[in-house]
Amino acid sequence: MSVTLVSVGDELLVGQVVNTNAAWLGEYLTGIGMMPVRSVVVGDSIELIDTELCDAFSLSDLVVVTGGLGPTHDDVTRHAVARFLGVGLHLEEKWFGLIERRFSQRGMTVPERNRIQAMIPDGMEVLANRVGTAPGFWKSWVAESGPKAIAVLPGVPGEMKSMMEEQVRPRLEPLTKSPVRQITLQTTGIGESHLQELLAAEVEGLSDILSLAYLPSLFGVRLRITERLEHGGTGEAAERLANRLTDLAGVHVYGRGEDRLEAVVGKMLERSGQTVAVAESCTGGAICNLLTNVAGASVYVAGGVVAYSNRLKRDVLKVEDSVIVEHGAVSEAVATGMARGVRLLSGADVGLSTTGILGPAGGTPSKPVGTVWIAYVDRHGEEARQLSLGQDRLKNKQRAVAATLDLLRRRLMEADSGGREAV
Amino acid sequence: MSVTLVSVGDELLVGQVVNTNAAWLGEYLTGIGMMPVRSVVVGDSIELIDTELCDAFSLSDLVVVTGGLGPTHDDVTRHAVARFLGVGLHLEEKWFGLIERRFSQRGMTVPERNRIQAMIPDGMEVLANRVGTAPGFWKSWVAESGPKAIAVLPGVPGEMKSMMEEQVRPRLEPLTKSPVRQITLQTTGIGESHLQELLAAEVEGLSDILSLAYLPSLFGVRLRITERLEHGGTGEAAERLANRLTDLAGVHVYGRGEDRLEAVVGKMLERSGQTVAVAESCTGGAICNLLTNVAGASVYVAGGVVAYSNRLKRDVLKVEDSVIVEHGAVSEAVATGMARGVRLLSGADVGLSTTGILGPAGGTPSKPVGTVWIAYVDRHGEEARQLSLGQDRLKNKQRAVAATLDLLRRRLMEADSGGREAV
Repeated sequence: MSVTLVSVGDELLVGQVVNTNAAWLGEYLTGIGMMPVRSVVVGDSIELIDTELCDAFSLSDLVVVTGGLGPTHDDVTRHAVARFLGVGLHLEEKWFGLIERRFSQRGMTVPERNRIQAMIPDGMEVLANRVGTAPGFWKSWVAESGPKAIAVLPGVPGEMKSMMEEQVRPRLEPLTKSPVRQITLQTTGIGESHLQELLAAEVEGLSDILSLAYLPSLFGVRLRITERLEHGGTGEAAERLANRLTDLAGVHVYGRGEDRLEAVVGKMLERSGQTVAVAESCTGGAICNLLTNVAGASVYVAGGVVAYSNRLKRDVLKVEDSVIVEHGAVSEAVATGMARGVRLLSGADVGLSTTGILGPAGGTPSKPVGTVWIAYVDRHGEEARQLSLGQDRLKNKQRAVAATLDLLRRRLMEADSGGREAV
Repeated sequence: MSVTLVSVGDELLVGQVVNTNAAWLGEYLTGIGMMPVRSVVVGDSIELIDTELCDAFSLSDLVVVTGGLGPTHDDVTRHAVARFLGVGLHLEEKWFGLIERRFSQRGMTVPERNRIQAMIPDGMEVLANRVGTAPGFWKSWVAESGPKAIAVLPGVPGEMKSMMEEQVRPRLEPLTKSPVRQITLQTTGIGESHLQELLAAEVEGLSDILSLAYLPSLFGVRLRITERLEHGGTGEAAERLANRLTDLAGVHVYGRGEDRLEAVVGKMLERSGQTVAVAESCTGGAICNLLTNVAGASVYVAGGVVAYSNRLKRDVLKVEDSVIVEHGAVSEAVATGMARGVRLLSGADVGLSTTGILGPAGGTPSKPVGTVWIAYVDRHGEEARQLSLGQDRLKNKQRAVAATLDLLRRRLMEADSGGREAV
């Protein structure tokens, strides 16, 4: 079924609240085989919501409305839905009793305003809300073009999500036909255009039911494969394509679905029983920060040194003054020295390091803004790489973090496959 | 002017990306006196985008389209806008030359695909993009109902934001009428309900033209004051209210507008000629990372140690084993010892530290998940604080970071006002 999401609320329009509900619903509905085609945010107005509902059903089979079910005079979604369906509102006695009990448990009587929360458009089913006082409502019917349904849910994310799962999903299942199967491949260390060239031959001849999207970010490009399961497909075509693309993109693919690079390398470290320590100059702690965002990271992250000053590079990481003077703080020699230093200091198996000029100031003709050296050291050997990044300080930081984690990943992969011993 | 936002991209519909652009644009446009009335997300389809543009202009005067300007075959926004305007596309030679230069700077030739990024709908103005390769485009005209305009921008948030500010805003100004004046106060260290109690008396009697919104986040609560300038107002009422609220909220207010806590403390450090070093256990480098996001931070950030392991706390920060054993790693004594240690090690004027249990695992009955100690040390003295946070690892990290930076800010304020000498 094609879906339109209608999010109600002035606070969304003026950016007081980011519309995370729409993103969650988009992902959730796609996951259960629905096809979101449009998502619209509209203010607290009966007329405008009513208009959006008419538009929405002209384009899609299912409409999910969120927000505007609270007790204040701004909350007009129930009135708008009733107008759209051409019905009135009635007091749902059973639900009002439940609201009364919830308030009396806190020693309060129901404020007059909250009475409205038990008012339901005639002919709609109540969707129970375990968490809050506002129930949702639901109606499905069969039009000439097939089944149609409308689900109306509160805008509070926790309430919306549990009601979607517990109340809406079971009602949707009998109505659905052509679901989709999606697979996302996570890549890093290769740009979107190069990836497209690499995959071009495979992607040219895709059948109608398969599509591929490139979703670039500072951390890499995600490849999203979608297979429409319209003709009884089981998702095998998506799986086959995912495997072919993984072969073609090779070492650039680091994971699937929601895999995050820091969690992927974390698992690799944990599996191999190794620990890592990081000496960060230009990345300023961002690598350690990301690695320790993963629950359980203390098993494989020893810690690190943020050596922003040369004093810390020298006194703590034991990079010799003469090396800093001769090569400059942004150099292969200093990067390698920092990685060695933090490894020895911490007793970790692997040492990583970064040193560079992220900008906006600090560039020179021979080392312009964006020049970064990263290094990897373990007991088998060392590897340093130079990066030539852009002008934007924060993007440069993200890219340097991604490149350093990717260097770690590739070295761990080589070790795992025994490749290093062969060198 | 009333505004409709049109965000283009399948990745938004299926929830792979949260539509933060729409929230940012809603807030930005409201701030410069526009009135967002509708925000719609649509997939990568020429027909659907064209339809949305027709709808959008039936309801609003300004339409801002973001996304779909990349080099891939999914990126069809330029074709859809051209179809909507009933015009063709032409190659903007000047912009193509610029793309060529950007690629050649990195030693690359322009891939054939990127040529499309210099194609502009006939009759539209180019909006220069300082950051990326995709320019935006703009057109304004006068309809019977008044001025109309369309701005088309890339979906990459950084590019979109700077182009909105530098390219679109100057073009919008001559078209706008009833503007608003907005002032945002940044607070931290106080919850939304306490802040509401503190400000209640002042806020009760607000006139029709003034409104106040509370915008909570993990870093604190922003107070946004809006004055409608409909009757020749000049924004003085907003300014007066901002001053009264600043007096009432006192030390909790750390800045205005887009001020960020890490930049505010950075300026305080720079002004007082002091440097800071941070010993981070549970925050894992997040404090150093945030401090060094600010351009020029190397003047006042010496660096730090991410002492995730007890070995680093002991060997590098010189926290004695007996202290760790007696009090536990999460304790006032260890926090203070870490702050002292990093201060001495780095030679910085100020030492900060964090040690705690962020979860999900690692809690004990006496030190449950969410227990964090933070400390501040300078030559005048020391201060340690215990935080009792929640169950969510990443939120706990953010809150601990904010509390530590706020501790630094308050100590620097005291020193600045001579308060400490009086103690």
